[in-house]
Amino acid sequence: MGKYYDQMMVIQQEVGDIHGALALMGWDQEVYMPRKGAATRGRQLATLSGMAHTRFISEEMGHAIERAGSEELTLDQQVNLREISWSHKRAGKLPTSLVKALAETSSAAIEVWMQARADNDFPSFAPWVEKLVKLQKESAEAIGYENEPYDALLEEYEPGASTQDISDVFEALRGPTVDLVQRIRNSEVKPRTDFLKKTYPVEDQRRFGVMVSKQMGFDYEAGRLDISPHPFCTHMGVQDVRLTTRYSEDLPAQSLYGIIHETGHGLYEQGQDVNHEGTPRGQSVSLGIHESQSRMWENMVCRSRAFWRYFYPKFVETFPDSMQGVTEEELYAAVNEVTPSLIRVEADEVTYNLHILLRFEIERGLFADVYTVDDLPDIWHAKMKEYFGIEPPDDRSGVLQDIHWSHGGFGYFPTYTLGNLYGAQFYDTAKQALPDLTEQIAHGELLPLREWLRENIHQLGMAYRPKDLVKQVTGKALSADYFLAYMEEKFGALYEV
Amino acid sequence: MGKYYDQMMVIQQEVGDIHGALALMGWDQEVYMPRKGAATRGRQLATLSGMAHTRFISEEMGHAIERAGSEELTLDQQVNLREISWSHKRAGKLPTSLVKALAETSSAAIEVWMQARADNDFPSFAPWVEKLVKLQKESAEAIGYENEPYDALLEEYEPGASTQDISDVFEALRGPTVDLVQRIRNSEVKPRTDFLKKTYPVEDQRRFGVMVSKQMGFDYEAGRLDISPHPFCTHMGVQDVRLTTRYSEDLPAQSLYGIIHETGHGLYEQGQDVNHEGTPRGQSVSLGIHESQSRMWENMVCRSRAFWRYFYPKFVETFPDSMQGVTEEELYAAVNEVTPSLIRVEADEVTYNLHILLRFEIERGLFADVYTVDDLPDIWHAKMKEYFGIEPPDDRSGVLQDIHWSHGGFGYFPTYTLGNLYGAQFYDTAKQALPDLTEQIAHGELLPLREWLRENIHQLGMAYRPKDLVKQVTGKALSADYFLAYMEEKFGALYEV
Repeated sequence: MGKYYDQMMVIQQEVGDIHGALALMGWDQEVYMPRKGAATRGRQLATLSGMAHTRFISEEMGHAIERAGSEELTLDQQVNLREISWSHKRAGKLPTSLVKALAETSSAAIEVWMQARADNDFPSFAPWVEKLVKLQKESAEAIGYENEPYDALLEEYEPGASTQDISDVFEALRGPTVDLVQRIRNSEVKPRTDFLKKTYPVEDQRRFGVMVSKQMGFDYEAGRLDISPHPFCTHMGVQDVRLTTRYSEDLPAQSLYGIIHETGHGLYEQGQDVNHEGTPRGQSVSLGIHESQSRMWENMVCRSRAFWRYFYPKFVETFPDSMQGVTEEELYAAVNEVTPSLIRVEADEVTYNLHILLRFEIERGLFADVYTVDDLPDIWHAKMKEYFGIEPPDDRSGVLQDIHWSHGGFGYFPTYTLGNLYGAQFYDTAKQALPDLTEQIAHGELLPLREWLRENIHQLGMAYRPKDLVKQVTGKALSADYFLAYMEEKFGALYEV
Repeated sequence: MGKYYDQMMVIQQEVGDIHGALALMGWDQEVYMPRKGAATRGRQLATLSGMAHTRFISEEMGHAIERAGSEELTLDQQVNLREISWSHKRAGKLPTSLVKALAETSSAAIEVWMQARADNDFPSFAPWVEKLVKLQKESAEAIGYENEPYDALLEEYEPGASTQDISDVFEALRGPTVDLVQRIRNSEVKPRTDFLKKTYPVEDQRRFGVMVSKQMGFDYEAGRLDISPHPFCTHMGVQDVRLTTRYSEDLPAQSLYGIIHETGHGLYEQGQDVNHEGTPRGQSVSLGIHESQSRMWENMVCRSRAFWRYFYPKFVETFPDSMQGVTEEELYAAVNEVTPSLIRVEADEVTYNLHILLRFEIERGLFADVYTVDDLPDIWHAKMKEYFGIEPPDDRSGVLQDIHWSHGGFGYFPTYTLGNLYGAQFYDTAKQALPDLTEQIAHGELLPLREWLRENIHQLGMAYRPKDLVKQVTGKALSADYFLAYMEEKFGALYEV
């Protein structure tokens, strides 16, 4: 019996349905909305978000949650109660005035950031970062935290994670990564990449990408692929998952790995238990775990030697002109080129995490009052030099490059690297569970891996929080070792270092 | 001062924003949603519709409306109060149990209708029509009416219209139309239409249609055109208007006039005053007036001799193969072919209204207890014979052809013919106001007409109810004379009758 549980779930389902509508509105905004529709769409998004929030933090909900705690519940129901209760409490702690101030400040800050980036003018953006840090410090105080304010921000994206835990694994990752990057820079092996800048007709890129994503098991009767300036994955339901990518005629790897990355996210969504749709039990558990799926597919599976064994002939067949005289080995090396670069979103698999570590360290320092906002450009330069051996010529390609801070989204960046680490650790377990995995990939058989991921991760929804999920799946706590071993093996061979 | 008015408008705006979301969800469902997303989308639509309804009929709203009545309001504000109050009262009169019974019954009836139509089995559908008529009679009693129950249903689609008024103009239309159809059937003039069944590449059809709709003044930065099985027009806001059409390689006229028709609707939406978006003052006034815009553009403007004077060479240039040896006059005659046919949605401009008259008479008879549901197939046959001189070989192409009754949508059909009549009357006035109109059309200059419509009809929103709008614009009450004169002149010449 769960009378109050049922009451709670009625509200949860309503809120879930509003979020489904919001997801569609957000998708359409990026993909099909006519330009002049923006203002009205913005207002409609705000109205519906507000309605979902109001309904979720209502007293009625609080009352139902409280009483449901004394009811006898199944394990799945306990998961829902735990997560709904957690979110409800968290949301309830934030004063409405603070939520409003954050929304208004970040809305204005985005405009300022865009202009500042265009003008290469950090000082004009700095006061806004200042304001947002101050507001998010207030949020952290309101929410509460165990050790440091940053914990409270982090847990919005990665429930149950602590700053110190993350810092420990990131520390373990940093030294060996900096060292590997250094060795690669000094290596005499330089992959040829000229052919990846030739002409690849967009329609053929699309066909090839869709073919790969179908082979990965993405169900196009329960999802679609469209075009948007910034690739993303969103969903209106377990059986309505939308991917986007972008195409340039001379950047075939960008669209292909974009599609694969988003398909990784999409498979996670399509793999949820449809019977729990709209509830925590039928929902992805965190940004980090989400990213583990996209990055595992993108890098560990589809940038592997085995992957190209099967797909190389198809790629050559699709793009015969540009691939003329390019060997399988050359293609494999080209899509795995490592070059220290200034821009995070263009970074390769090895240097990517260093971009994240830098941002994580800065954010943590800001919230522990170790750094001030005015220090940021200098710190940025110093860390770029230390980790990459290069320095940005201006703030536009340095501290001003990302949109995240203008959203007030402190605590988001670390989930990218967490994704890489989770991904490597999961993949290590998958390889043990599926001894023929590499062989299967080399034959284009990607479904066994998808099935394993579905069974062991996707369909669990939020049954376990990220930390526990990693233990549940791999038998071990999160560690940087798996990713480091993977990198050493792959790039050691590629660059002969 | 209007404190309560403002309160009312806050709720109205919220409800309007939900309706914007619902419009997008409905659009996406027809245009891009993956097949398996249907069940979840259905639930989300129901949740959001329910939320909008609950908010709109809330006591808070009723209270604000009541008090706003004593406030000093501008003319625009009075329009909003009048219409919101009217809808609120109407919605409040319907018991929730009845609303629910209607939703559930029609949801089931649609399935039954689809099967019955496929099986050509009216008796299996009849009990459901019976149920829906009974429920809508209850609605009519709950809402109240002046003369007959059908009034109460009609006013949902055509506020302020009465069954008797409509019946009077329809009566005036019937005799002369039946007579004209008879004369055309006996005419020896038979336009050649063979070339319209040749091959017209879909992409060229799209380009040509978009070109025409742009020339009509549709703003593609505030709207778009997509593909759906059943063409429609919807909007998320004044500056976000979505048209759809469908293409067949051998039916170029279908897609072209489909695009033009929906563009007519779209111009009405884009012509609303954006400052009143989401309120009655910034909203189309009725289905009939909406249809007057689409049909005026489709038939009176774009099926005119003048239209093809300008567009014929472009059409030939776009489709040189299929248009080989076809004269301008032949193209004009072909798109204006009149043939009595069984199916309403395929009917030409002359016979179309007879399809509507037949349905209107049947609906009115059902609600006045003159007809029973079991009589319908026989009545259908008798009226088809009387008006068209032909009879359907089965109910599938007779009484079972339309979806409307399975929705419980009695009172909807007459708005189609009202649209034709309003359209002809408006167009007559437009011609007087713009003496060069025909000449302009013959030069492809369609913007002067759009401007006139915008100024005199579109941007008025719901300032006047349909009946008053017609008087306001044309100086006269609605009459069938304008449409009859238009038909006689055009088709008399075309068929030499």
